[in-house]
Amino acid sequence: MALKNLHGKATLTDDELNALKASAKQARINSLTMVQAANSGHPGGAFSSMEMFLSVYGFANLTPANASEIDRDYVIISHGHTSAGVYAALIEYGFIPAEDALPNFRRFGSTIQGHIVREVPGIDWDTGNLGQGLSAGVGFALAQRARNHDGKVFVLMGDGGQTKGQIAEARRIAVSQKLNNVIALIDWNKIQLSGTVEEIMHCNIREIWEADGWEVVECDGHSFPELFKALANAGKNGKPTVLMCKTVMGKDGGEMAGVPTYHGKAPGEPIYSNVVKSLGGDPEILAKALDARKNTPAPKPYREITPFEAEIETGTPIVYTNEKKSDNRGAFGKAVADVGKLNYKVAGKTPILVFDCDLSPSVMTGEFKKVCPDEFIQCGIQEHAVATISGAAAAAGTVSVWAEFGVFGIDEAYNQQRLNDINKAGNKLVLTHVGLDVGEDGETHQCIDYVGQARNMFGWKLLVPADPNQTDKATRYMLKTPGCVCLAVGRSKVDSIPEFASPDYKFEYGKAVKLRDGKDGAIFALGYLTQIALKSAEELAKQGVNVSVYCVSSPLEIDEAALKEACATGYILTVEDHHVNTGMGAILGLEIARRNLGAKIKNLGVEKYGLSGVSSELRKAFGLDSEGIAKSFIEFRK
Amino acid sequence: MALKNLHGKATLTDDELNALKASAKQARINSLTMVQAANSGHPGGAFSSMEMFLSVYGFANLTPANASEIDRDYVIISHGHTSAGVYAALIEYGFIPAEDALPNFRRFGSTIQGHIVREVPGIDWDTGNLGQGLSAGVGFALAQRARNHDGKVFVLMGDGGQTKGQIAEARRIAVSQKLNNVIALIDWNKIQLSGTVEEIMHCNIREIWEADGWEVVECDGHSFPELFKALANAGKNGKPTVLMCKTVMGKDGGEMAGVPTYHGKAPGEPIYSNVVKSLGGDPEILAKALDARKNTPAPKPYREITPFEAEIETGTPIVYTNEKKSDNRGAFGKAVADVGKLNYKVAGKTPILVFDCDLSPSVMTGEFKKVCPDEFIQCGIQEHAVATISGAAAAAGTVSVWAEFGVFGIDEAYNQQRLNDINKAGNKLVLTHVGLDVGEDGETHQCIDYVGQARNMFGWKLLVPADPNQTDKATRYMLKTPGCVCLAVGRSKVDSIPEFASPDYKFEYGKAVKLRDGKDGAIFALGYLTQIALKSAEELAKQGVNVSVYCVSSPLEIDEAALKEACATGYILTVEDHHVNTGMGAILGLEIARRNLGAKIKNLGVEKYGLSGVSSELRKAFGLDSEGIAKSFIEFRK
Repeated sequence: MALKNLHGKATLTDDELNALKASAKQARINSLTMVQAANSGHPGGAFSSMEMFLSVYGFANLTPANASEIDRDYVIISHGHTSAGVYAALIEYGFIPAEDALPNFRRFGSTIQGHIVREVPGIDWDTGNLGQGLSAGVGFALAQRARNHDGKVFVLMGDGGQTKGQIAEARRIAVSQKLNNVIALIDWNKIQLSGTVEEIMHCNIREIWEADGWEVVECDGHSFPELFKALANAGKNGKPTVLMCKTVMGKDGGEMAGVPTYHGKAPGEPIYSNVVKSLGGDPEILAKALDARKNTPAPKPYREITPFEAEIETGTPIVYTNEKKSDNRGAFGKAVADVGKLNYKVAGKTPILVFDCDLSPSVMTGEFKKVCPDEFIQCGIQEHAVATISGAAAAAGTVSVWAEFGVFGIDEAYNQQRLNDINKAGNKLVLTHVGLDVGEDGETHQCIDYVGQARNMFGWKLLVPADPNQTDKATRYMLKTPGCVCLAVGRSKVDSIPEFASPDYKFEYGKAVKLRDGKDGAIFALGYLTQIALKSAEELAKQGVNVSVYCVSSPLEIDEAALKEACATGYILTVEDHHVNTGMGAILGLEIARRNLGAKIKNLGVEKYGLSGVSSELRKAFGLDSEGIAKSFIEFRK
Repeated sequence: MALKNLHGKATLTDDELNALKASAKQARINSLTMVQAANSGHPGGAFSSMEMFLSVYGFANLTPANASEIDRDYVIISHGHTSAGVYAALIEYGFIPAEDALPNFRRFGSTIQGHIVREVPGIDWDTGNLGQGLSAGVGFALAQRARNHDGKVFVLMGDGGQTKGQIAEARRIAVSQKLNNVIALIDWNKIQLSGTVEEIMHCNIREIWEADGWEVVECDGHSFPELFKALANAGKNGKPTVLMCKTVMGKDGGEMAGVPTYHGKAPGEPIYSNVVKSLGGDPEILAKALDARKNTPAPKPYREITPFEAEIETGTPIVYTNEKKSDNRGAFGKAVADVGKLNYKVAGKTPILVFDCDLSPSVMTGEFKKVCPDEFIQCGIQEHAVATISGAAAAAGTVSVWAEFGVFGIDEAYNQQRLNDINKAGNKLVLTHVGLDVGEDGETHQCIDYVGQARNMFGWKLLVPADPNQTDKATRYMLKTPGCVCLAVGRSKVDSIPEFASPDYKFEYGKAVKLRDGKDGAIFALGYLTQIALKSAEELAKQGVNVSVYCVSSPLEIDEAALKEACATGYILTVEDHHVNTGMGAILGLEIARRNLGAKIKNLGVEKYGLSGVSSELRKAFGLDSEGIAKSFIEFRK
């Protein structure tokens, strides 16, 4: 019997309370059966959070009917390892059938995975790496606000993970953005993986939330009336609220109750049967689950998650000439402001959110802030949280752009971007000051590894435009393209390339654009190094050596036709201000080997951590100036 | 005139105070001259932190004479962008000469870099990426305690960066470890890059530090007597202490004072000259600095930073046979406990610290904890802080080991490990549960990108042993080898390989070990997949195809002789449970292309995010079981 959704109710009738209590028993039985059938999982937290799960899924405007819509309430289970408990609660509300979940938990090929995934209706964020859930919640809340939807966001967490610094970052952003529709719930069972919370790492949970400006409410995490009442009251004083839900790990789990061992372990017999019987169940369901696990195929995903498709106008590209020289970061800034203005508060258009970590003067989002003030979100120096927030905001129906120095956007926040990718969040990440093109900030600020970082995931598109014209067009392409897209630009003012200024030129993902033809070899240049490579080609021509020059702006995607054509010249030189072993040159080299294309390849790039210096000096030191490139080519051909 | 070090003084004589005040003027003049000569840098913070710099370098047991020793006080400037101010303070105490610093700030080739680096004496940690300094301080303090040295650690920070979550993590570890010898100082000037702290991101600085259990003391950050007194009192009540130093950004900087613009910008004329004159200086020093910048070579590094060389016994390898089957993570755990016990509290031996983030039962450091209780450091779920702490502890004279799930150790904390590398910290990172060998936790927990992450840096050595015997030997090798070394192991129990059990076998970094000879092709297998590749080779032999099998345990280092030999067979198949584009196979493929070795190569690996499942199922799904590998080889040779 499916439980009714009690959206927004503060007080339960006797019938409602009894139904919830019955479901809590059944859900504990079901979750323990999943864990026992898989012989793996986390029963302790599943049992301690059970009333929290059932209350939140009952209270929220989130049902099997609207779970795949955009404008509704959101529920994030940050302690994703309690998955068996979550699935059991979702069964009670009719999101998924018990006959799927019980046999297929943690089974290979099944959607009922070890850590929760969005392919299960009712799950809004793939979690498992702790500390990210509150950030996701803030992202959902910001998206809903931008979409003018008055929804609530519920974030459930464990207590052991309260120590993750990213949570503090998200707390402050929630307060600064006045998100009183975000309600956090902490399963305060005082036990974590290897012992009690007190033994492992003392943390004054109440004090740290209060210090960041949240309303803190304590309640009995096993009492439905207390939980519903607290949920209904949350946010009424204008602040985001956290409920510290006092619970017992393994509650109602007999010998498992209060024992850290069962944080992450199936109980085995006789505990399994004893617990099921004490909850009024029949332990025989385990045998049935095991039989189905063995003899029936794993169920297909309940839904396919695809990135949100934005409805926006992308306007007309700005044309840059060499009289109106610009930096690529500036061209991004102008383009995003232009598109922002075109769509700002226009009915039927997707909101465009731009996130900032106190760098707008450097990452050039100041103009956007001016023209779209309500869609510019200042987040302070809190990159881990912002990476996740921008991901969740994208998943919940906005064009979500975070412009940031390369080292912070993809090095500092790599795991957050990896989880955005896994979540198919579809956020837009703009990395500025990449490569050696940082100015004199030195090695800690030189993001010479962004191609490698993006290559190390599966779903990201990476755009590295060469000049302001291509940057403008790539920016508009990025804003309109579903999925996770990263745009990487440097700091220097660079020459414009006439081909990209032409109204006929459209940014085409994956295409290497041949800008010069030659038969003695080919240079593939990444982004703004194209201009320099073109100069090298002219110097080489003076020496009687004629080379093709290809501009690569999508280094993760190989333009097979261009590569094959270039290989016919016998010599491929790659040029980039990126780690020489993990960038575009490495990608092309590997492809030459895999396809046995036969051409010789030489990679120019960054071979050690750099020093302070202006870009041109740094490039010269690594042989990436026009003279150095030409010299390398001559030596290579010898 | 160099200032005297006033180590530990609480009260200043008039002469001392006057000397400090004179130095503060001179240091402001010098730092502004550096910024103006470079036409780049951060004068605002340099001026507001100046009395803090001079007080801490005066108070600490850190002098030009002992700056390169291990056992002394440590000073970390976390807001490393205030570098011009730091260098100016170091000039006053005689660490570096003014004639080097003034002309060479942010100059290409110079050690006087944009963000501070350890090559300058008096600088203990390369910073610039905010939020990491307190973690470094905790690491230094733990190392000094382990070495039985009663030193102090001073961490200076800005106020805008107080929002970084990693600081909260480090605060809790400091309290949990009772590090009352850590003294933090916040430059509380209330201005950050793009506006006031209040505008950018409200943060209740006092409350968040108090909530985590620190003693908070407010003082006038421009008053030497208040600063020395506060430094002398800090820690007396047994708690770590933070001084909130009330300052003015750009203090004594005339028009620059209190203006956010000068956070990161040279003032230009007439401001430069006006400020210098108002401080009693002669603006002509700028012309001299510019002349020297143009006409003299950049100074050499003042000192070379090399990783600490540990003095430990590494004992006798444990021998594993197939009767005594083990997992590689278990073999690591036994080896580190064995070496720990051998050296624990033995005079003259380097302390071995093992850090844990609530995962010791999974990462197998429980035995070490038992035998070396004082050297096991429980840090809770706070990976960003721990990554930096373990780095700094290594730099300050310990063997520092952090054992952690792969996704948290190198994905979540990538930027911290990158900065450990830049710092030449020499920490030891043990990644467990790597590749598909995680158990049923699913995609968020599968670290299929660690080879790519390590390859994306420059200094890391990566060891991926194949069996428990090789793991044991690689662990002992890691513990004794200076520099950043990462050991990566899976979760499953695996077969032992007789060759590695032999007393004659020694772990040799960079060597690919040929375990089987064949003329029809070669398989290079990473780590524990070697056993599976050997089975494939036997299956292939039954079909009349004889292949060599190489065990690769150092994927970042190419065994050129082995590769050349293998290429002579014409066919190279690589096998790993890692992202197929960023692992060992990609490295070998690129090398084949670069050296034009002519052999055909095919890479087997992980081609998308995985699912929940036991390792063997997941491997099979990606064709990484013995049958799949054999089949791939046959198709490849067609």
